[in-house]
Amino acid sequence: MGRPAQRASADESINDGSAARGNGPSSARSRPTLALIAAEAGVSQATVSKVLNGRTDVAQETRERVERLLKTHNYSRPGLRRARRSGLVDLVIAGLDSPWAVEILRGVEAECFEQNVGVVVSRVHEGEARPRSWVSVPTTHDSDGVILVTSRLGPEQYVQLEQTGAALVVVDPVDVPPPGIASVGATNWAGGLAATEHLIALGHRRIAVIGGPQGMLCTQARIDGYRAALERAGLTTDRDLIRFGDFHHEGGFREASALLAAERPPTAIFAGSDQQALGAYEAARQAGLSIPRDLSVVGFDDLPLCRWVSPPMTTIRQPLEEMGRIAARTLFQLLEGQALVSPRVELTTELQVRLSTAAPKPWP
Amino acid sequence: MGRPAQRASADESINDGSAARGNGPSSARSRPTLALIAAEAGVSQATVSKVLNGRTDVAQETRERVERLLKTHNYSRPGLRRARRSGLVDLVIAGLDSPWAVEILRGVEAECFEQNVGVVVSRVHEGEARPRSWVSVPTTHDSDGVILVTSRLGPEQYVQLEQTGAALVVVDPVDVPPPGIASVGATNWAGGLAATEHLIALGHRRIAVIGGPQGMLCTQARIDGYRAALERAGLTTDRDLIRFGDFHHEGGFREASALLAAERPPTAIFAGSDQQALGAYEAARQAGLSIPRDLSVVGFDDLPLCRWVSPPMTTIRQPLEEMGRIAARTLFQLLEGQALVSPRVELTTELQVRLSTAAPKPWP
Repeated sequence: MGRPAQRASADESINDGSAARGNGPSSARSRPTLALIAAEAGVSQATVSKVLNGRTDVAQETRERVERLLKTHNYSRPGLRRARRSGLVDLVIAGLDSPWAVEILRGVEAECFEQNVGVVVSRVHEGEARPRSWVSVPTTHDSDGVILVTSRLGPEQYVQLEQTGAALVVVDPVDVPPPGIASVGATNWAGGLAATEHLIALGHRRIAVIGGPQGMLCTQARIDGYRAALERAGLTTDRDLIRFGDFHHEGGFREASALLAAERPPTAIFAGSDQQALGAYEAARQAGLSIPRDLSVVGFDDLPLCRWVSPPMTTIRQPLEEMGRIAARTLFQLLEGQALVSPRVELTTELQVRLSTAAPKPWP
Repeated sequence: MGRPAQRASADESINDGSAARGNGPSSARSRPTLALIAAEAGVSQATVSKVLNGRTDVAQETRERVERLLKTHNYSRPGLRRARRSGLVDLVIAGLDSPWAVEILRGVEAECFEQNVGVVVSRVHEGEARPRSWVSVPTTHDSDGVILVTSRLGPEQYVQLEQTGAALVVVDPVDVPPPGIASVGATNWAGGLAATEHLIALGHRRIAVIGGPQGMLCTQARIDGYRAALERAGLTTDRDLIRFGDFHHEGGFREASALLAAERPPTAIFAGSDQQALGAYEAARQAGLSIPRDLSVVGFDDLPLCRWVSPPMTTIRQPLEEMGRIAARTLFQLLEGQALVSPRVELTTELQVRLSTAAPKPWP
């Protein structure tokens, strides 16, 4: 650790309720509980935690009132949160089976390695009403904060997380978390636009899209990008060509098979995830079609496997590793009490042209 | 944590050299340093550590002498190591870019989750003479032990790791670590045998193998299994059909391209890793060959992507997730002072038949 370890922290007062506790080896200041400050300020403990954590979703007036009380009670001199305490951050991943989760892990690990901070990795275990891996964060080990990689959390689960009082950053390439929570994502709409414009430029006119699950924000954004590209090219949108999958191989295979079996099949499919695109590869193979000669396919994510499949896949790159890095940096900013320029950062997606797209066959 | 945290440990005496230190909240026994005990026993500190860690590579006589001294000095009552101290184990991975590393991570995480232990994940960062991620294990955070996933460590690096005194288990699907170090692997020879016997049973007679790098033990074992299958079927081994790759897509592509361009190309390739098998897929595609009609391909590992590629890949399954679980269990056994039945465990590999293998085309 490059910085002195300082064991006293806001969280400890929550945990043990002690109102008189040493604030470090050389200090014997007495400290009130968060509960007391919350009561005096007329706000919830969660709000006090938010102020301590530098969160942006607290009204300016409330923040000032809480900060005054914290100061009055000598609770937190400016920079109390700055000292990294445990040298550990938690990376909680909803599903270690997702190939993109690993890309994000690489970025988080790389950034934390540079900061000499360890990364405790856990996944949300299915079937747990209150996943132990979230609520246990403050109890099984010290942790400076949590980076959550997910696309599956509901509002209740965010509330649960907030109540732990931990500094939190969400990495979500798929959904946008509730306002006020620091998050890192990618530009889904622009990605849908770029994928479709690439296919149009190749000469395709009958282009299908297989989005993720209907109702997901990223599905909406990517499909809206697709529509925008068609519109800009003066093409009409055929509702039969807009499908919804599950982001997995299975959904891509199912929807692509249906599209290819239709009376007027598309000449190109924008598959909305690399795994769905591979499902389209398999649907094409089973239909006796060759990629890209008979069908062009574009994925979304640019997982390493895009370079390994046959033919290598044209896809929209999400900078997943970089998103992990930015998430870790954002967490360190929160821990150091720095204000965030914006609670939401979206990194740029980028078209990667490989061998799964080509001009459509001329009509026979 | 289900167990009481006990901060006093063997390692602390090494770190601070204190000869009189409390042995827990309710104890004030004085404790000598490991150095003292090592000197009295006429062995190295590393040997004393090994005895404390329940390692099997200490001569019986030496072990007894050290244990007697530990007892005489009240250094370690039976079970001192049993109390888990930090609730954390380190998982150090040589290369988070390997898809199989993630499978192992899933198993380690699942087992540790059940034991309520956190997993600190770090990777060996290339270009570091003494990777910080190893030597820092005892300094950046408490850790009960280390699970190392690797196929790249040399003898010197193992010595470095031993010197940290941490309990250690190596997961290596590729190489066999030095004797005395607890390790988990898979049956490479049997896998090579099963892959080749599958191809022979389909009617193939001209079968190529692309191993990993020459000189690696697992390469040797897999190729020996291949040879054994040919011999058992009364087929001769053609040295031109035995190639060495790099376990990556590139090596598989390069070697498969060369094999397919030869005067008498093989009708089947056992590719020695799933990534190499995908390289063979691409070589076949570029040669205008269809899998499995014109060429059968068998991989090794059974990564999730085998189900996603087109055609779905026949491969030899290594139970990577289970290997991670067993590694974690083995580490817990070491930490609890249990003797291991064997320092090396090899889990069974298994043929997974999918769509990349079929009978060879009849000669025209």
